[in-house]
Amino acid sequence: MRPLLAVTLGDPAGIGPEITARTLADPESVRAARGLAVGDAAVLRRAAAVCGLDVEINAVTGLEQARFTEGVIDVLDLGIAGDDLAWGKVDATAGRSAIAAIETATRLCMDGAADAIVTSPINKEAIWAAGSKHLGHTEMLGELTGSTRHNTMFVVHGLKIFFTTRHMSLRNALDKLSKKVVEAAIHEAFTALKVFGEGEPRLAVAAVNPHGGENGNFGDEEIVSIAPAVEAACAAGLNVTGPIPADSVFHQGLQGRYDGVLSQYHDQGHIPAKTYDFDGTVSVTVGLPILRTSVDHGTAFDIAGTGKASPGAMAAAFRTAVDFAPYADRIRAEYGTAR
Amino acid sequence: MRPLLAVTLGDPAGIGPEITARTLADPESVRAARGLAVGDAAVLRRAAAVCGLDVEINAVTGLEQARFTEGVIDVLDLGIAGDDLAWGKVDATAGRSAIAAIETATRLCMDGAADAIVTSPINKEAIWAAGSKHLGHTEMLGELTGSTRHNTMFVVHGLKIFFTTRHMSLRNALDKLSKKVVEAAIHEAFTALKVFGEGEPRLAVAAVNPHGGENGNFGDEEIVSIAPAVEAACAAGLNVTGPIPADSVFHQGLQGRYDGVLSQYHDQGHIPAKTYDFDGTVSVTVGLPILRTSVDHGTAFDIAGTGKASPGAMAAAFRTAVDFAPYADRIRAEYGTAR
Repeated sequence: MRPLLAVTLGDPAGIGPEITARTLADPESVRAARGLAVGDAAVLRRAAAVCGLDVEINAVTGLEQARFTEGVIDVLDLGIAGDDLAWGKVDATAGRSAIAAIETATRLCMDGAADAIVTSPINKEAIWAAGSKHLGHTEMLGELTGSTRHNTMFVVHGLKIFFTTRHMSLRNALDKLSKKVVEAAIHEAFTALKVFGEGEPRLAVAAVNPHGGENGNFGDEEIVSIAPAVEAACAAGLNVTGPIPADSVFHQGLQGRYDGVLSQYHDQGHIPAKTYDFDGTVSVTVGLPILRTSVDHGTAFDIAGTGKASPGAMAAAFRTAVDFAPYADRIRAEYGTAR
Repeated sequence: MRPLLAVTLGDPAGIGPEITARTLADPESVRAARGLAVGDAAVLRRAAAVCGLDVEINAVTGLEQARFTEGVIDVLDLGIAGDDLAWGKVDATAGRSAIAAIETATRLCMDGAADAIVTSPINKEAIWAAGSKHLGHTEMLGELTGSTRHNTMFVVHGLKIFFTTRHMSLRNALDKLSKKVVEAAIHEAFTALKVFGEGEPRLAVAAVNPHGGENGNFGDEEIVSIAPAVEAACAAGLNVTGPIPADSVFHQGLQGRYDGVLSQYHDQGHIPAKTYDFDGTVSVTVGLPILRTSVDHGTAFDIAGTGKASPGAMAAAFRTAVDFAPYADRIRAEYGTAR
């Protein structure tokens, strides 16, 4: 049976409803999966209208009412925000709707009714106005699923990109690098490669300095932290290569020489993925007991309601969820219980 | 008249002669320019043979003997290395040949006989064995042309990428960033954009921290150095935008929103260019009174002599030299005299 993907509308005042409508209306999506929108039916209906889509919005209260067929978008209706909501404005009702969609879709995944959650962008200020204290999706999903192990994996044209450090200054990232931290990140990345379908994973580890430091001439992070971590991982039987200069390693990965690349800081992994294919860069939250893919862009309040938003990133997130849906059980088994 | 490009063979024991032979034998190159190989005719002849090229090697001692026509590669013969040179080995004679080719090609450009020099890779140890003390091409060209202002510009799919810092550790690069240094780099980049054909340059400046630092939450280089430098440049009348998060700015540049992007550290500019198009990333030395383009790969001693080397990067360097040849006079005028 086609996998069932719960697609949240995100902030109803942003472009989430439009990119969801366009993606779920695409016959290719319908052939690949049973896509279920989760949010407000009224919001989705007006989004379909501004996109000029000839599609029926089928508001359901349970999965058994969904039709999962071409020409129809099934939406699990939350009934929170209406079609009178202002486009592109921070709004507490919009925030409540965004939160409820995530909670509902997560429950469907935790219950095993859905194979994955695919998320549209939310607005921090709106969810704060609605009483949430979370910084974003990931923290919220962590709490909802009882996971603290979560991390981000990028998928771009099949290459999986991992991160040793992420949301901190570049200086702090450099300070944070140690053999121990890099080695732990290697093991997490390696585990994720296996969970997400690589039989015999090949992981490459990026250097941080120009030309990989040129034997210590340009920095010593490679000598002090990265190389020893790679050696330890190899000694533990993992197929890991590195440190490799960062201006080669992503190219080599995209050519198929590696299944995954571990980047050492936020931009090191973001720059190649998004330059190579901005819309085709899908964010996957690894470490949750459920499969979650996401667009990596924001609510784009400036163009919300115009029908102009490109659904490319959402379509890629949807396709990636289809690709990984067969591993939902494995994801639950690996990440379902605290280690 | 078609521009005249002096293409050095680089280290005769590396892949330079092969990629030069393949590029100059291509009818498309012949239509676009008068390509003149500079190096040893014997070395070029055996390179053409291992590549299986059906082409005549026309050894010349002066430009008037060159034919610049399909089916023929003209080579200004240095007569230093012969066809008995071992492939893929560091060799003083090879080093001497590599140095002589650069000197000869540079002189042709300085004299106005050639419009550009396009360089194949050299081997540091080989040129050191031959008595040179230089680290590479750039230092050598700086000395030969009496320039100390030289800097690297990458060109990838028309986008020009500049660097505030380059060959130093990432930590040192962060330490080096200041309003003054970034502002000077902006002005140099802006000048280069004008010299290399942009009538009304639009320059974007990359941030160094995730999300551009998020107003100081993730680092303060943007607040302390980059934003003030951009403001000062704008106040001086330059069309400069930034700091822009580095995972967006190269994508935006490649989409045509900017003519150039100033990156703050080596890998920040190298990663996007080489991930986007490894072979299509051309290095241009800016600040010399002559036009110089180059491949950005090495001598690949491991595959030299097999005919397997891809000429893609050399072909791109050749095409870029053709594109910029009309600006040779402007380059001389701007960079020909010390400021």
